[in-house]
Amino acid sequence: MQLPQKVLITDVVARDGFQNEDRVIPTQDKIRVIEGLVQAGVTSIEVTSFVHPRVVPQLADASEVIAQLPRHAGVSYSALVPNIKGAQRALAAGVTELHLVVSASESHNRANLNRSTQETLAQLAEVISYVQQENPQAVLVTCISTVFHCPFEGRTPLARALWVIEGLLKMGIRNINLADTDGAANPLQIWQTISTVKERFPEVTWSLHLHNTRDMALANALAGLQAGITLFDCALGGIGGCPFAPGATGNISTEDLVHMLHEMGIATGIDLAMLLSKGE
Amino acid sequence: MQLPQKVLITDVVARDGFQNEDRVIPTQDKIRVIEGLVQAGVTSIEVTSFVHPRVVPQLADASEVIAQLPRHAGVSYSALVPNIKGAQRALAAGVTELHLVVSASESHNRANLNRSTQETLAQLAEVISYVQQENPQAVLVTCISTVFHCPFEGRTPLARALWVIEGLLKMGIRNINLADTDGAANPLQIWQTISTVKERFPEVTWSLHLHNTRDMALANALAGLQAGITLFDCALGGIGGCPFAPGATGNISTEDLVHMLHEMGIATGIDLAMLLSKGE
Repeated sequence: MQLPQKVLITDVVARDGFQNEDRVIPTQDKIRVIEGLVQAGVTSIEVTSFVHPRVVPQLADASEVIAQLPRHAGVSYSALVPNIKGAQRALAAGVTELHLVVSASESHNRANLNRSTQETLAQLAEVISYVQQENPQAVLVTCISTVFHCPFEGRTPLARALWVIEGLLKMGIRNINLADTDGAANPLQIWQTISTVKERFPEVTWSLHLHNTRDMALANALAGLQAGITLFDCALGGIGGCPFAPGATGNISTEDLVHMLHEMGIATGIDLAMLLSKGE
Repeated sequence: MQLPQKVLITDVVARDGFQNEDRVIPTQDKIRVIEGLVQAGVTSIEVTSFVHPRVVPQLADASEVIAQLPRHAGVSYSALVPNIKGAQRALAAGVTELHLVVSASESHNRANLNRSTQETLAQLAEVISYVQQENPQAVLVTCISTVFHCPFEGRTPLARALWVIEGLLKMGIRNINLADTDGAANPLQIWQTISTVKERFPEVTWSLHLHNTRDMALANALAGLQAGITLFDCALGGIGGCPFAPGATGNISTEDLVHMLHEMGIATGIDLAMLLSKGE
């Protein structure tokens, strides 16, 4: 069984988790959770989303979160950015790693972003040009949602995923996050898809974003590891979901993923005991 | 990714599940659940245990369950048998597939069977001789508990598992069930252990019994499939545990395992929609 020796965990609880909570979590509590992650050794954290506050009021404090977060050497804070307005706000707040998003499936792209996948790709090209002009050092990661399965359309054809990836590559994107948005991918599909895209696009750095809707998240992570993935999103406590993916439940739990990785001798740099105490 | 085309599921809810419920489930309700499994296409069911009623009062009706269960062509009912007394009761009740049990770890064997592993192996030799004499057609499967991890001793050394397996082979056992009793094995360990024992003992038919304590059961099943396992225990609703393994939680859920297998194109002969309706 081929497995990597090291994995980098990106915790997304402060974005994917908190945006799915019914109540708005106070900014100070968000910062406390993010600081706890840092203390436990998490070095990559998606801390918020610069989505319109009307759409996701839970993250209306995006700029405040960024402004108030203490900076630590070696720790990267990233933020999701749905459009050029969000990119402007994110750059103004000092964000240096921006996560863009597009859905492989037409129906989810419309539900999530209110336009066609093609229109979103065109818009991303503008966002990317803008960011590269404003801050050439900024890191750009594009998340492809519903790349394995769509809550409205079922299994996503691989050809559709390849088409979106090719579009992103033409815009200069080299960091791509593959998202099982509704937690319906299976390990064989994960392995086959990642093996295919890794071979076809060797210039890309791939990461994997899993949900645990059908309890397959750790099995899917194992398949991802075997296909060579070393970057994983996860969320403290396994909370989260997708407001625009009916039936989807929480993200893969950071605690459970770190535990499985450590048990298999894969290093993460995270102190699991401290992580567990922070998640309580 | 090497996966088998077909898997045989043995549902153990009526034994491993019901023995862990606080209240005693009426015999008729047990039969209704077992009949539901058969209707959904499950062809191998561990229906009870002939353990002493004082130790596991939840299964005191073992003989009645066997007597009252309607027989169906192609459906096998098995029962767990902890000792010669249990074997006598099981054979008298007409059971033709008996599941024996021994723990790889000394502490769990004492907690579960009140004697040393060596003593249990000696006792198993007597049980096996007795059964082979009374019913030469009877199928004998031996479950090795805590073969990967023990709730009292931690990770079980592979050498210890090999020693128990060799003992069983000398008694003529050719069907061995490897049990992750407290749900603490990890996928790499599962894969390494099974690859090793399959190569070293090619005459054995192996099955895998998983618990989901740390949410790794499906990942462990995936590793087992990749190592060539085609026989899996699981329990409807993922209930169960082990009364003598502190902290252990439920079995791998039949519904979740069947779902994952089907999604990967692996046949089980089970109607998942009907199975889900029976589990409600």
